[in-house]
Amino acid sequence: MSSPSATPNTYPYQNEPTWSKSEKAIARTAFDAALKQELQDVMRKTKQTANQIKEPADVWELEHYLTERRKEIDRKYDYRYSQLTQVFGRLLYERRITEEDLRGLGEDKMKPIRSLAELLAKYAA
Amino acid sequence: MSSPSATPNTYPYQNEPTWSKSEKAIARTAFDAALKQELQDVMRKTKQTANQIKEPADVWELEHYLTERRKEIDRKYDYRYSQLTQVFGRLLYERRITEEDLRGLGEDKMKPIRSLAELLAKYAA
Repeated sequence: MSSPSATPNTYPYQNEPTWSKSEKAIARTAFDAALKQELQDVMRKTKQTANQIKEPADVWELEHYLTERRKEIDRKYDYRYSQLTQVFGRLLYERRITEEDLRGLGEDKMKPIRSLAELLAKYAA
Repeated sequence: MSSPSATPNTYPYQNEPTWSKSEKAIARTAFDAALKQELQDVMRKTKQTANQIKEPADVWELEHYLTERRKEIDRKYDYRYSQLTQVFGRLLYERRITEEDLRGLGEDKMKPIRSLAELLAKYAA
């Protein structure tokens, strides 16, 4: 139900940056490293939580935590180039990556990445 | 969409045993003890599995195990008197309870309980 556009079905969309080969390599490395780190956090937290289980409710709380983390990670790590500036913006805000990790990306990517990170810092909890 | 019955909507159903006060007390004790034991098994297994986590896939395997166990336990421990002989039949088959735990129940309960336990022993894996 989107409204008609002057240039329907064009690809790439005008505002969507294109990624060079070297930028794709930088993006892949930063993405994979952040994901790996996040998964290691979940592994560490799972062991720690499991060791503190004292009653059945603790078990189902762990199950709920794992389900939520799995869904969140699935949603968050979306390696489509159309999503990647948003993904990195959030990861930058969460300090899972630094600007240093993204060095080599053009300003057309860095600008929306920084903007989202700043927006989240301003408005998130 | 059930076919018409000679005695529709009668309660208790003719073949459903009624439970005396003392039988209810025995049932409750056996039921609670088996459930407690089963939950302790899950707690022990969760700690053990969590300690052996080596890679992310192990985490999601634990999540899947917990979800399945929660659903299975929810289904299995159904304390409606209309379901109780089936519940105990299965628990007897699984050796989570013994006939000793059910001592004091009338033969009208023990017979279907034993029958189901034997049936499961014969046909289950």
